[in-house]
Amino acid sequence: MQYHLNGFHSGDPSVAPETAQSDHVDVLIVGCGPAGLTLAAQLAAFPDISTRITERKSGPLEVGQADGIACRSIEMFEAFDFAEKVLKEAYWVNEVAFWRPQADGKGLHRADRIQDVEDDLSEMPHVILSQARVHDFYLDVMKKSARRLEPDYNRELATLTRTDDTEFPVTATFKCLDTGAIETLRARYVVGCDGARSVVRRSLGHTLKGEAGRQLWGVMDVLAVTYFPDIRLKCAIQSAEHGSLLIIPREGGYLVRMYIELDALNEDERAADRNVTAEMLTEKARAILAPYTLDVKEVAWWSAYEIGQRVCDVFDDVPQSDRKTRTPRIFIAGDACHTHSPKAGQGMNVSMADTFNLGWKLAAVLHGQAQPALLHSYSQERQAKAKELIDFDRDMARLFSAKPKNTEEAAQFQSYFKKHGRYTAGVETRYEPSNIICKGAHQALARGLKVGMRFHSAPVIRLGDGKPVHLGHTLKADGRWRLFAFAGAGDTGQPNCQIAQLCQYLRNDVASPIKRYTPHGHNIDSVIDLRAIFQTAHQEVQVDSLPDLLLPTKGRYGLIDYEKVFCSDLKNGPDIFDHRSIDRARGALLIIRPDQFIAAVQPVGDFDTLANFFGRFMIPQ
Amino acid sequence: MQYHLNGFHSGDPSVAPETAQSDHVDVLIVGCGPAGLTLAAQLAAFPDISTRITERKSGPLEVGQADGIACRSIEMFEAFDFAEKVLKEAYWVNEVAFWRPQADGKGLHRADRIQDVEDDLSEMPHVILSQARVHDFYLDVMKKSARRLEPDYNRELATLTRTDDTEFPVTATFKCLDTGAIETLRARYVVGCDGARSVVRRSLGHTLKGEAGRQLWGVMDVLAVTYFPDIRLKCAIQSAEHGSLLIIPREGGYLVRMYIELDALNEDERAADRNVTAEMLTEKARAILAPYTLDVKEVAWWSAYEIGQRVCDVFDDVPQSDRKTRTPRIFIAGDACHTHSPKAGQGMNVSMADTFNLGWKLAAVLHGQAQPALLHSYSQERQAKAKELIDFDRDMARLFSAKPKNTEEAAQFQSYFKKHGRYTAGVETRYEPSNIICKGAHQALARGLKVGMRFHSAPVIRLGDGKPVHLGHTLKADGRWRLFAFAGAGDTGQPNCQIAQLCQYLRNDVASPIKRYTPHGHNIDSVIDLRAIFQTAHQEVQVDSLPDLLLPTKGRYGLIDYEKVFCSDLKNGPDIFDHRSIDRARGALLIIRPDQFIAAVQPVGDFDTLANFFGRFMIPQ
Repeated sequence: MQYHLNGFHSGDPSVAPETAQSDHVDVLIVGCGPAGLTLAAQLAAFPDISTRITERKSGPLEVGQADGIACRSIEMFEAFDFAEKVLKEAYWVNEVAFWRPQADGKGLHRADRIQDVEDDLSEMPHVILSQARVHDFYLDVMKKSARRLEPDYNRELATLTRTDDTEFPVTATFKCLDTGAIETLRARYVVGCDGARSVVRRSLGHTLKGEAGRQLWGVMDVLAVTYFPDIRLKCAIQSAEHGSLLIIPREGGYLVRMYIELDALNEDERAADRNVTAEMLTEKARAILAPYTLDVKEVAWWSAYEIGQRVCDVFDDVPQSDRKTRTPRIFIAGDACHTHSPKAGQGMNVSMADTFNLGWKLAAVLHGQAQPALLHSYSQERQAKAKELIDFDRDMARLFSAKPKNTEEAAQFQSYFKKHGRYTAGVETRYEPSNIICKGAHQALARGLKVGMRFHSAPVIRLGDGKPVHLGHTLKADGRWRLFAFAGAGDTGQPNCQIAQLCQYLRNDVASPIKRYTPHGHNIDSVIDLRAIFQTAHQEVQVDSLPDLLLPTKGRYGLIDYEKVFCSDLKNGPDIFDHRSIDRARGALLIIRPDQFIAAVQPVGDFDTLANFFGRFMIPQ
Repeated sequence: MQYHLNGFHSGDPSVAPETAQSDHVDVLIVGCGPAGLTLAAQLAAFPDISTRITERKSGPLEVGQADGIACRSIEMFEAFDFAEKVLKEAYWVNEVAFWRPQADGKGLHRADRIQDVEDDLSEMPHVILSQARVHDFYLDVMKKSARRLEPDYNRELATLTRTDDTEFPVTATFKCLDTGAIETLRARYVVGCDGARSVVRRSLGHTLKGEAGRQLWGVMDVLAVTYFPDIRLKCAIQSAEHGSLLIIPREGGYLVRMYIELDALNEDERAADRNVTAEMLTEKARAILAPYTLDVKEVAWWSAYEIGQRVCDVFDDVPQSDRKTRTPRIFIAGDACHTHSPKAGQGMNVSMADTFNLGWKLAAVLHGQAQPALLHSYSQERQAKAKELIDFDRDMARLFSAKPKNTEEAAQFQSYFKKHGRYTAGVETRYEPSNIICKGAHQALARGLKVGMRFHSAPVIRLGDGKPVHLGHTLKADGRWRLFAFAGAGDTGQPNCQIAQLCQYLRNDVASPIKRYTPHGHNIDSVIDLRAIFQTAHQEVQVDSLPDLLLPTKGRYGLIDYEKVFCSDLKNGPDIFDHRSIDRARGALLIIRPDQFIAAVQPVGDFDTLANFFGRFMIPQ
């Protein structure tokens, strides 16, 4: 954490100095779910962007439906600086147990027990925590931001219209559910994060396409006494006669979530038609778990739902045919554009990833840093990923509901479950080449850091203070691009070596993206933030002889920022160069997007390619 | 974190359900410094204890003097559940550099650079963070407690009298500095945490004894630009001509603290007589750092002080001669009973350790669990430690101020500095044998876990959910005693093995301390909390066949607590048995005090010794 740059202030450093509010709305976010709050927290990082976020409900969520938090989401929470709060309160999914009928068909036995997340998939674990708490942490980030952003509750979106106004082309009217008044807002951009029954989606004329669910499932959070031995492990249980049960232990050490297979629905039936009750779910869970007893003491929450996998064709207001001539002003995200079953634990995670993708793009365009055409990439990138998710979820749901005819089929489910660990961890997302994702011609320079995928962190030592840190944790949700320059052999930043030449170029060349795109008077790292990583022990790098750009002077006093340079951690295990297969002889330069995705891997000395990359979508200042 | 035991509640789990306030005062704490707040936070853990804490100042501290936080203090913060907040905001002291004059007497050179804290001294680092922030975290713990404890500011203690009242024998009068009113309070116990000019100490007639300081030092927190390369490392700098300087980088990446040697004071002089200014300090620092430049942009805080090492003979209101006939009602802690120089970074840490020692004892006596004579041990244990600190500090200050005549003398300072790393980390504290610290006849069963010292944590796997955790982090500041039963070879908790026999004894025997001292209707682990640690892989321990006491049913629903059993972490490095030299053949039983100190190491099967230990000071229920 860096603070005190512009003078010493006492108190909580996570609270930003308050800025004046403005009347206009740059971005209107409809809906306070995970997608809406991720976007609001992202935009709150920018004191000059005015955001409004509205919610139909009368206050913050108290009991959440979603609870599975993928490794990738916690990496993102780290960018928002609240990962440690989630890690503290959450249940950690360390292992998964698979239970199947005994050979004689009577009772259950543990067929396998495996690690839930494979080693070094992420520095973060897979955890379970009430969605309501995740909301709380986002609300806290928003409230501490310069604009002290808080949701407007009791606002039901009535109409949404795109006008010809060039500045504020979207008009929204809300019914205030507490007072009955009608409120009208004009905004530059609107993002509909208003769930599966999205009014924003409807106003765009988009529909969710795909299969409606036919398989009925029940879910309940219970406080219960059982001597089933794996009650504090994630368990997939397939009984001989009574269907399947998924056990997900919850935070706090006592609460347990159970997903219970119910019957298939008829063609024209909805979940509500079956009059499912908590007692029915309890009965069914008991039958599946037998001969283990289950004594439910309290049902904290329960629901019944049908599995459906549906997705919109496009996530903004520009039809395919118009994409060359106009840029989007209205977007949809999260459940508003894709729905799926909850069991793979993907809903909340994918929704947050949607708006983490969108937030920095909106900010870059609002700041006049990037061309508005950049906004097309949101629907392009995220719609493709939503489609992938729907397909995955459909396979998964089918396998889960299929009654295994024999041991082979049961084992098949188990193997599928394992194989998709990476997918459910959220770290498999790979965006296709575009003007913000290079083709990866130089991928061989850093084989473990894939172009189009999120930067996979590894430990390093920070040079200035010798602190062991995770390199990826420098990737904060602050809208900045990062250049990670991994030095080749023997390069410790001394003059004439490659890193010094890169700094020389970035600092002085007229074509340098740092020079071209950083507004006058802003800190030199405010748009593109260079970090260097050396292979040598940190004691051997001379701070005195580093290039200026790696010791930049910043803020009103011109204080030196000592957190730009890192070295291999040679004391503990393989260093980052080995860990991520970085070419030790040649080094590598990574261009990393503000959402932590790797846009390019290229040679350190290939300045033209670097300049060309940013030239495709940035606006010179 | 465990919660939802007595039913599901939404919201922040660190906020306790509120209890009714009472008019009487069990413990009155005078002073809101680190000692006072540690005690208040400790007592706030008990809804049935009524605490008041008063402060002369009109509100919370905003700019703190102390900043060094020893590893041991962070271990304690973990017990109060806010270690992660400190770790996040603080500067981490990873290395220390020693600078000395060049051989030709001109300029400086780095003579050495060493790791600040040796490996595996603690799972926590040595950090630097403003005392004000530590206060904030304690205040937060207090405010979230059942009694929503908050300080009464603007209260200046006027008089303190011990009366003959058997219930509330101490009467305090306060002047309310905001209203001018006089307030009278009667309390069962009073603890003076009111600093070096303690009114409580004066009311007891105690005095600080020792040497007054003669060496003048300046200290300042600055935002500055310098090309001195180690400005983000802790540095001890000895110049040829201008004296010594200690650089302590501060939190946030930019702020730096400098301790600057000034002149020796004359016999009758005080620091204030010298009219020290921030400019003088800056000039002096500049001279010491030359030829490196120092451009101070802002002085956030500064002070000048003389070094003095003084301590009281006794830390309570019972003279040595009366200790057999009466028990203490008034205590003093922190600067009220010991003062020392700030440079060794011990003041705040030792003050917090004082009241962490006292808090659980007060709670145990107020709860009727322990005999009031237990309270004698506070002064006995902590006065001895304060004395040690004073001696250490005197040596350290002398060495720091001594102008090294030659390289050998300079190297001597350096070696002393290294040697005392353990001491300054706060982990060397060892209490003498007493009725709450055994003599250590069986120390050989766990050579790395010393009787009289704090439990030195190590990683283990929690059986119930397979989570890698630190065993020491189960030692929360909740007033409970812990029994850590390390199983001998082959013992996995199955019937007839040693652990099962221990459980059988503790559960059923009339002499069992759990049976004798746990009040009727309380959870079975509410006074003495048994945990077992097995040597085998956690996958090999059968949860179903564990003794009841290791799967206790608790709370209004009788829910099972699955967090009592741990196993060796065989995947990562040496396991806890190797790490802490625990006898693999015989195992070991540790009795751990509520303040994390090891009271006894004994054979697992020696039930009589176990019963006798608690019999010395506990009261049967």
